Amino acid sequence: MATLASTGALAQTATLSARESDPKVMGWMVGFPPPKNKIITQPDSVYFSFPKLRWSVCHMREFLPTEQISRGLGAPSSMEYLPPSEFADERQAIDALEFMPIDGDTDMTWEGSLYANYTDGMLILHKGRVVYERYFGCLDEAGKHASMSMTKSLTGLLAQILVAEGQLDENAVVMDIIPEINGSAFANATVRQVMDMTTGLRYSEDYSDPNADIWVYSAAANPLPKPEDYTGPNGYWEYLQQVQPEGKHGEAFHYKTVNSDMLGWIISRVSGKAVTELASERLWRPMGAEQDAYMNVDGLGVPFAGGGLSAGLRDLGRLGLLMLNEGVIDGKRLFPASVVQRIRAGGDPDKFGTNYPALTGGSYTSMWWIYPGKDEVFAARGVHGQTVYVDPSAQMVLVRFASFPRPENPLIDPTSLPAFQAVADYLKAKR
Amino acid sequence: MATLASTGALAQTATLSARESDPKVMGWMVGFPPPKNKIITQPDSVYFSFPKLRWSVCHMREFLPTEQISRGLGAPSSMEYLPPSEFADERQAIDALEFMPIDGDTDMTWEGSLYANYTDGMLILHKGRVVYERYFGCLDEAGKHASMSMTKSLTGLLAQILVAEGQLDENAVVMDIIPEINGSAFANATVRQVMDMTTGLRYSEDYSDPNADIWVYSAAANPLPKPEDYTGPNGYWEYLQQVQPEGKHGEAFHYKTVNSDMLGWIISRVSGKAVTELASERLWRPMGAEQDAYMNVDGLGVPFAGGGLSAGLRDLGRLGLLMLNEGVIDGKRLFPASVVQRIRAGGDPDKFGTNYPALTGGSYTSMWWIYPGKDEVFAARGVHGQTVYVDPSAQMVLVRFASFPRPENPLIDPTSLPAFQAVADYLKAKR
Repeated sequence: MATLASTGALAQTATLSARESDPKVMGWMVGFPPPKNKIITQPDSVYFSFPKLRWSVCHMREFLPTEQISRGLGAPSSMEYLPPSEFADERQAIDALEFMPIDGDTDMTWEGSLYANYTDGMLILHKGRVVYERYFGCLDEAGKHASMSMTKSLTGLLAQILVAEGQLDENAVVMDIIPEINGSAFANATVRQVMDMTTGLRYSEDYSDPNADIWVYSAAANPLPKPEDYTGPNGYWEYLQQVQPEGKHGEAFHYKTVNSDMLGWIISRVSGKAVTELASERLWRPMGAEQDAYMNVDGLGVPFAGGGLSAGLRDLGRLGLLMLNEGVIDGKRLFPASVVQRIRAGGDPDKFGTNYPALTGGSYTSMWWIYPGKDEVFAARGVHGQTVYVDPSAQMVLVRFASFPRPENPLIDPTSLPAFQAVADYLKAKR
Repeated sequence: MATLASTGALAQTATLSARESDPKVMGWMVGFPPPKNKIITQPDSVYFSFPKLRWSVCHMREFLPTEQISRGLGAPSSMEYLPPSEFADERQAIDALEFMPIDGDTDMTWEGSLYANYTDGMLILHKGRVVYERYFGCLDEAGKHASMSMTKSLTGLLAQILVAEGQLDENAVVMDIIPEINGSAFANATVRQVMDMTTGLRYSEDYSDPNADIWVYSAAANPLPKPEDYTGPNGYWEYLQQVQPEGKHGEAFHYKTVNSDMLGWIISRVSGKAVTELASERLWRPMGAEQDAYMNVDGLGVPFAGGGLSAGLRDLGRLGLLMLNEGVIDGKRLFPASVVQRIRAGGDPDKFGTNYPALTGGSYTSMWWIYPGKDEVFAARGVHGQTVYVDPSAQMVLVRFASFPRPENPLIDPTSLPAFQAVADYLKAKR
């Protein structure tokens, strides 16, 4: 369980603060060539370790094969901003907001929280207008950043759209859609159980156990050519076919990335389109994205539906607006309102459990996090601090890209969730 | 030496015609997952062999790490088209044009030449307007295609811009700009010799010799992690530091890709920017490209300045317009007219030699091909049929992406160059 105390402990053991570990300060990859000790390269155990990961989160495609999510060829949709005369004042006001971290004993400012959480990009929209936008570290407005597990929410949204349109039956069992999953624990899970991650699967992420499933999964997913003596599964989809059961489907929420890969396969099979194509046709093109996005792929060209998305900050702002406004952006409806209504209705809080202290009482459904509390906040979340946070009560969308040293969002929640609430309260008061 | 006879021989030995080898007909990568025998994957000896290469030329990023050439975030520049009422007629008229292939004895139609050359995309601009545009195989208007050695012309253009601006001294020797090249054959070559590929370098591309330089170069350039026992150079730039001399600099044109990698390093060193960044800042952003482009990178993140570019067909049309109009597009000047004037002035035809039968009497300068003849045609060219062909006398720009089975443009010239000339003559007659 994460508390500010453990965050404090981290701060003591982590050698470098956000400012100290800023990739520009570190001088990563500067020069032609950079000095040898400033070059970031393979393998991922190197390029994705702190502090190097603070550079790498903006450069995933430079390490790995990727597939494009095309924005199409037209002009991007315009994004409304506060008038320039108000924008600077609003930033100053928000930066100065104070809040009490969870389990903390001293107030922190909003701006302080950005550094506490190793923020790379922060965008806040209120009533459809950008009221706050800042970039740090490796990111700028024309850059793209790893979304990590926010990718799951993209996959879940696409699935929910197909459900609403009747293309995907959430009550079907997976084997009815993908017969070759027979023999895997997924075979008799319903699509809804996969979407809500209430499947009963054996999938250990114990990194200290060399036989843990995560290592088999990683080897299968690795897009580099397999070693000659490799006998394991090749790619996400072969891996899924040999997942074993553990416990019963439908009983409890277990956060396991393989559900998202399974869902990615399901929506590709029923739609006849890769997740990247679906994301382009249903979202990036019609929402008027200003940048292409991309997804990492395995060695067979399958996009990583559980974590492979990299995108621009403002484009995830557009995605957040679509969620806030129940499928409408720029006056155009992209999908039925029932899609977001179903997500906001949430899953079963009893099944959600207490593994995520700051979210107890909430739930996880269609690969979105439903927060507890009367404001009906819901969010996409990814390790190292990624979030698209939608607060309908404040008509607020907040997007954060970050590169927090450790891959544990519970360490970040204490200085994030009350900070987001403080901004929401401030914006509500302005009405 | 290539003649239509050898092209005919090829047609006999090649098992599949353009229509037969169309990736859609072959069914590559269709299905979730595709049938095992329809999956295209590593290594490059597989994915870049005919007929698979006809799919792979549109999907380079799905195999390899890449770096973006950003188009920026604004609206693309508009591209003027013939009025719709005239467009279909014009296509019909051009498709029906007839020409005699070099060394041929039977006329061929323009449309026939598209199939003879395994064309994936063809764009023709006349007086700044699109008069002809067709897509085949793996390509569509929102797709990107490997440009192969046309990348060299991009690198050369950027270098010529820096020369015109006084940032790069074409008379300097490479060692004055990059001291660590000392010990390599490049050390005492001038920048101009590198730009014109009149350096004297030992660089064998004898694929049948396992010790040929091409293999050392390929191993150095491969972005995948090196084998544990690997002791060779790492990346393009380490490779360049150990290139040995062969013959004298300045005496003759020898087409060797390493010159382009050297030039990429030179322009990065003097500008402080990667080739991708320079291409974005100087060309893709200001010309209003409608798609980002990208370049393959080596294992240290260095873009492949000799062949790594993938781009959209119409964006290379914009690049062609910039060349035709000496630096101006959409009424905006991007670089001095002297840049194109210097390229069009050409190199020394005596040094060019007779290795390229259809181009004898022409030259190669700043990594552009200057064609013989009074029309002052010049072009970017890449293996498997890529070209940006500029005919100032006809105010014509022609861009072709293709996936001809063999990597030898001299096999394609006999059914391409007279075809281009036929279109140019047709367009001239319309004035």
